[in-house]
Parts: sequence; C-alpha cells; structure tokens
Amino acid sequence: MGRLGETDEETMTDTRQLESLTASGWVGTTSIPGLLSFTTKFESVVQQVQALLTALDPSGTSGPSWYASVIPRDDIVRGEYAAPFPQLLGSVHSMRQAPNDSEAGVGSAPVGELEESDVVLAPTLCYHIYPHLAGVRIEEPHYFDLAGQCYRHEATSEYGRFRSFRIREFVAIGTPELAHEWRDGWIERGEQLFNRLGVKVSVQQATDPFFGPGDRFKRASQLQRSLKYEFVAPVYDGDPGTALASANRHNDHLCGRFAIQLAGGDRAHSSCVGFGLERIVSALIQAHGPALENWPELA
Amino acid sequence: MGRLGETDEETMTDTRQLESLTASGWVGTTSIPGLLSFTTKFESVVQQVQALLTALDPSGTSGPSWYASVIPRDDIVRGEYAAPFPQLLGSVHSMRQAPNDSEAGVGSAPVGELEESDVVLAPTLCYHIYPHLAGVRIEEPHYFDLAGQCYRHEATSEYGRFRSFRIREFVAIGTPELAHEWRDGWIERGEQLFNRLGVKVSVQQATDPFFGPGDRFKRASQLQRSLKYEFVAPVYDGDPGTALASANRHNDHLCGRFAIQLAGGDRAHSSCVGFGLERIVSALIQAHGPALENWPELA
Repeated sequence: MGRLGETDEETMTDTRQLESLTASGWVGTTSIPGLLSFTTKFESVVQQVQALLTALDPSGTSGPSWYASVIPRDDIVRGEYAAPFPQLLGSVHSMRQAPNDSEAGVGSAPVGELEESDVVLAPTLCYHIYPHLAGVRIEEPHYFDLAGQCYRHEATSEYGRFRSFRIREFVAIGTPELAHEWRDGWIERGEQLFNRLGVKVSVQQATDPFFGPGDRFKRASQLQRSLKYEFVAPVYDGDPGTALASANRHNDHLCGRFAIQLAGGDRAHSSCVGFGLERIVSALIQAHGPALENWPELA
Repeated sequence: MGRLGETDEETMTDTRQLESLTASGWVGTTSIPGLLSFTTKFESVVQQVQALLTALDPSGTSGPSWYASVIPRDDIVRGEYAAPFPQLLGSVHSMRQAPNDSEAGVGSAPVGELEESDVVLAPTLCYHIYPHLAGVRIEEPHYFDLAGQCYRHEATSEYGRFRSFRIREFVAIGTPELAHEWRDGWIERGEQLFNRLGVKVSVQQATDPFFGPGDRFKRASQLQRSLKYEFVAPVYDGDPGTALASANRHNDHLCGRFAIQLAGGDRAHSSCVGFGLERIVSALIQAHGPALENWPELA
C-alpha cells in the first residue's frame, strides 16, 4: 500500500526505490510495506550519524542512553500523547498471567483472552523522561540524550514512512528562555549537520495534528508561535519531502502534565529535537547514490 | 514485583541490585519493574560485546543487520511461536485507519475501537528470517547475523528478566549435519567468549516450555535430543542463575513450517544461537564489579 490517493506513477516510484535499495544491499523487506530491516552497510552509516550527533550536542554527552521500545501506558496517558495521535499508537495486549505452576516447572500459564497490558509501543522517546522529574522542583536545567526503537502505526507506506524505526532525541527542561534558546540553537546545529552531510534540507515550520481534524484555529496558532520546525529532504526520486528531524518547543505543556516546576514554583518549559536515524541514512543514499564507496567523508 | 513465590529476602536482593546499578550509573528505572533504560556507560559495554560477537562468528560477517521490533503476525502464526508461548507474546492493537482527510490536511482519522493489528512484538529475531526463504529450495547453507529489540511479557521481574531487551542472534539453515555441527560449534565458541570475558558460565541443557504444562514426556524427549543449551551465570548477588545466551537446534520444525527445502527435496534443518545483550553486560558487572575502570580488558 502506498500513499492513499496517490497515482499509479507515485506507487511505482516507491516500489522502484525499495527494489533499488534492496538490490544495492541497504535494506531488507517483510511482507508488510513500511516494515523493513537494515543491513550491516546501512548500520555502519547509522553509527557514523550517531557519532556526529554526539559531537554536536552542547551538553557534553558521551552518547545516548538506550530506552525500552515500550512505555508505561500511564505515562503516555499522563502526557496526553494518545489524545492527538490515537491512530498512530500501538497498544500492547497480552494474556493475563497466572501464578507459576511450580510443580510442572514451566513458568506461567495463560488465563483467558488478550487484554490491554500496562505498556504501549513508544511512539517517540521523550515520554520516557518526564516521569523521572514528575513532581520535582528543578534547581537547574536538565538535559537528556536518548536513543531507542519507536513504532507508529502509519496508514501509508511510501518509502521513508517506516513503522518501526530508531530516533536519537535530545531534550532540555528549564526556564522558558532556556528551552526556547536551546531549541533555536538546535535549528542552527541541525542545518550545520545536514550541510556537512551534503544533504540539502529545507527548514520548514510545521504543525502536528495536535488538535484533530478541522481545528484550523489551533493549527494556525501553533504556526504563529513557531513551535515546530522540520528538516525536510527527499528520500526517494520524486519525494516531495520527508521530515528527517524536528525541533520542537513544548512550552509548559508536558511539564504541566508531569508537575515539573522551576525553583520559584512556576511550571518548567521543555523542548526536544528528534532525529529519525533511518530517514537520515535514506536521505544520504538519495543525495550521494547507492554506492557507499563513492560517498564523500561524512565526518 | 519479584519472582512469584519468592521470599521477602529474595525480593530485597533484587531491589538492592537495581538500586546499586542505578546509583552506579548503569541503568535507569521506570514505574514498571523489569522495564529499564541503559546508560551511555552500559551501552559502551554493549558495543564491545557486539564487536566480540562479530569477530567470533565463523561466517565472516561484518556485523549484524538490524531488524524491526515487530514481526508480521502471519509469520509468527506460521512459525507457531504463539502456541507454546502465548503468555509471553505482546500483541499490537491499533485503531483502524480511515482514508486521509485531505481537505483538513491532518492525516488519518481513527475509526472505532482498538483492534488486533497485522504485527506482534518480536519475541526473538529468527522469525524474521524464515519468511525470506519460504518455499525455496536452497542450494547451499544460509547464515544470518541479526540484532534487534525484542519484547516478552514476563510474569516476573527479578533483575535480568527484562521485558524490553536486545538480542544478537546467529542462524544457520542447511542440511541436518550442518545445522547440528554449527550449533555445537557455537557451544564451544560461546564458552570461549565467556571465558575471555571473565564470566563463569555453566552450560546447561534446557527445555523450553514448548509443550505446555504437564507434558513431561515431550520435555524429557527434548532433553534426550539435546536441542537446547543455555549459558547460565549470576546477574545479581544470590541469583541462582540467569540464561545469558542459548544455542538451539530446531531440527526441521521451522523449515517445515516455512517449506524450506534442500536441493534434493528434503526439509532443511535450522539452528540458532541467541545472545541477550543486556544480560551479558549485567553478568559482566556482577563478575567485575560496578566500577568499569577496574575491569580487565574485554578484547
């Protein structure tokens, strides 16, 4: 399945891209479009991009912490992710567990049908962070460097719209000024990075569908307040543009949800910048061609 | 929640281990026991273990391919994973998607309730492999080197029983003799690896709860046929032993399910060896102490 409402020609472009990347040893396919594996060669570039991001972060990180691919359901509910994006969320269901049958010595036996478990698939990483500071008054800015496997139940599967993918994400929590300036600094650093990588990006203001269909007023307001910028570049021939990364101000929304305060008692503010690792490598392949040996140095 | 049926003392041991590893900067916790994050320091050791495994593999791999954290449901059903292990499987449920509301320009709208999606969380990695060879007559042995994020809905959460974790897995598919000898070679290579790492492992025959509680006959048969060996070592003080890795013969079971044949028309045989990366690093911390700077060289 390609992009809904697309023309036959667009479907063929996607299919050709996937066939080309498979033939040149970059990705593997599954029976589900949008669900791919990434070869050793692809992974070698992921590692290089990770190292460049580590060097770029101003907090002096020595590299990311690795987070689980699932998040406690309570944390996603508290952060209100599911309200604006219900259709993207993968909910984990499982069988209820009975106490061990220790006589048989074979672990737990299932009881009954599948039911909603206590976790959902991580749609992005920063929801892992806020619970750690919930109810805390912070005395100084907090910076985080995260990596992990995410999942979004995407409706379309044009190349680049991966269902299961990795994000590298940086988060800052502090005063309104700090969160704002840190985010704007990452817009500059992001542009530097993509220039250095030889990937021509367009930096675009964007809206999340935060408010459901039809609420034009709130989307217009989000644009006016410049909350979200995306780094957009093609990842296949004819791609109108895929977001490789985004730099976002949450203002006090998430800190409010998790009761994170500044020393004086005001709500803290947060910002995050997320890099889609598979999309960045895909943009590099699109920019420099499928022959890795012909690429310029990325460092 | 600790191991079901455990004593208070055992619960305290687990809690102390987690507190110690958090304090010494190795792991982070969530509100759900058994769901952890792994710090930059932890990740640096994961990378070293990965490199040692790459060097150990006899197929000449240059490193693993990275696989999705979810697997097509049809492939898990065809491989019959869910029959013996229904209680461990995380099933992904999602909202059905409506066609884009292109006028509103906000992507897809949800329709109705959560329903079973086309994917499940990967409980292990080798189920990613068989569909690629389904219906194929193979002319020569096939070898695979995989890494990825897995999930098991574990009933207990003693330290080491991670719900979300990474596996490095090698798979061989070929004649019965090849699959058998390759697996036995990995038992030797695994012992060499753990010796070199300074982790005292016990290599134990094991049974999967493949046949449900109470079917002692089939478990005894599995033992007699030596299908499964585990590398077992403590990952916390007082740990009776945690499986860090396993080396398994599937005989023709999985190749039969996926109709993978040898050139002559007989069913191919398969074996796999899986290394639990977070468990191996945990065993290293248990063996060498929490101060990484005091560890011996791992290479």
